[in-house]
Amino acid sequence: MALFRIAKKGHYDFINITQKVKEIVEKSKIKDGVALIFVKGTTAALTIMEYEEGIMEDIKEVLEKMAPENADYKHHLKWGDRNGAAHIKSALIGPDLVVPIEEGKLQLGQWQEIVLIDFDEKEREREIVVKIIKNE
Amino acid sequence: MALFRIAKKGHYDFINITQKVKEIVEKSKIKDGVALIFVKGTTAALTIMEYEEGIMEDIKEVLEKMAPENADYKHHLKWGDRNGAAHIKSALIGPDLVVPIEEGKLQLGQWQEIVLIDFDEKEREREIVVKIIKNE
Amino acid sequence: MALFRIAKKGHYDFINITQKVKEIVEKSKIKDGVALIFVKGTTAALTIMEYEEGIMEDIKEVLEKMAPENADYKHHLKWGDRNGAAHIKSALIGPDLVVPIEEGKLQLGQWQEIVLIDFDEKEREREIVVKIIKNE
Repeated sequence: MALFRIAKKGHYDFINITQKVKEIVEKSKIKDGVALIFVKGTTAALTIMEYEEGIMEDIKEVLEKMAPENADYKHHLKWGDRNGAAHIKSALIGPDLVVPIEEGKLQLGQWQEIVLIDFDEKEREREIVVKIIKNE
Repeated sequence: MALFRIAKKGHYDFINITQKVKEIVEKSKIKDGVALIFVKGTTAALTIMEYEEGIMEDIKEVLEKMAPENADYKHHLKWGDRNGAAHIKSALIGPDLVVPIEEGKLQLGQWQEIVLIDFDEKEREREIVVKIIKNE
Repeated sequence: MALFRIAKKGHYDFINITQKVKEIVEKSKIKDGVALIFVKGTTAALTIMEYEEGIMEDIKEVLEKMAPENADYKHHLKWGDRNGAAHIKSALIGPDLVVPIEEGKLQLGQWQEIVLIDFDEKEREREIVVKIIKNE
């Protein structure tokens, strides 16, 4: 298992972690299998997308309409923080991704990038686990 | 493969199954690998979230805005039941989760809990499969 | 790893690929494990749902409300195409599914079907990877 940490600004911070994951796959020397990528937090999510500025703004706009960052959420009454919207988006998008590995390489499509979206209200370090499962 | 059943009330019933999954992982004696958790139903979903009452209400509010339980859906014309909204939410959130295992333990973040959300309109038993894949 | 291609019309084309995946699982002769199903594109997604015409229309209606196909998106300024909504839905639903295999068979619930949804604006061929990981 490889683990890395990245500092995230929150508020719809889209971080492309594809290169990092590729390096871990190559270092593992595993030719055939799958890679699980998992973020250990409840206010971030992992997805696969074209890493393009316009798409990021479009996703942000759709998600803001669904659950605006600045609205009042029941969760705010619990701890006094203001990240209720971040919890909702994290639960709906999810923390886990599984990607095939073949001939020692991640089998992503031409435009597919592995992206961590941080929805939280403040900067924090994120822990991402990459677990490679060998086939036979 | 381990399989367990739980009775669910439906209507946004959030059931924390983390302890159940942890027990299955420990019993397996597998030290290094991944756990697949999978619900065999089309009106429920699995997610990972902080298991906090406020967040559950917040998620419910956002999903009700997106697809209200009491609206009329085309699916209702098929079988005469009223769970169209449940099918939509199940398809969008998904039935599968994959979580890393290291040193015999699920690698969840401090606040991450594995949660089954039952969206259906009536009580039913849910079948959840836990499949542990050993690394090497 | 098995790979297959299907031609998709886009615009919320729901293609049931369950039979195809089942054939790949049977051909593999693997009795115990998991199947990863992965689509190599950023304007399509994979989900599990009851494959019923009404549900497809209901899902389409909810997603159109969330991100209408014909709206203007920032992404359209990048390449001049009009598939911004497709990118958003693909990122939110995701390209990967993991399903348990037991006694040589996919462990799906009675109504669960593996469905590729193509959101793009024009016909295109889609590449789907099926990777079976053997347990022990």
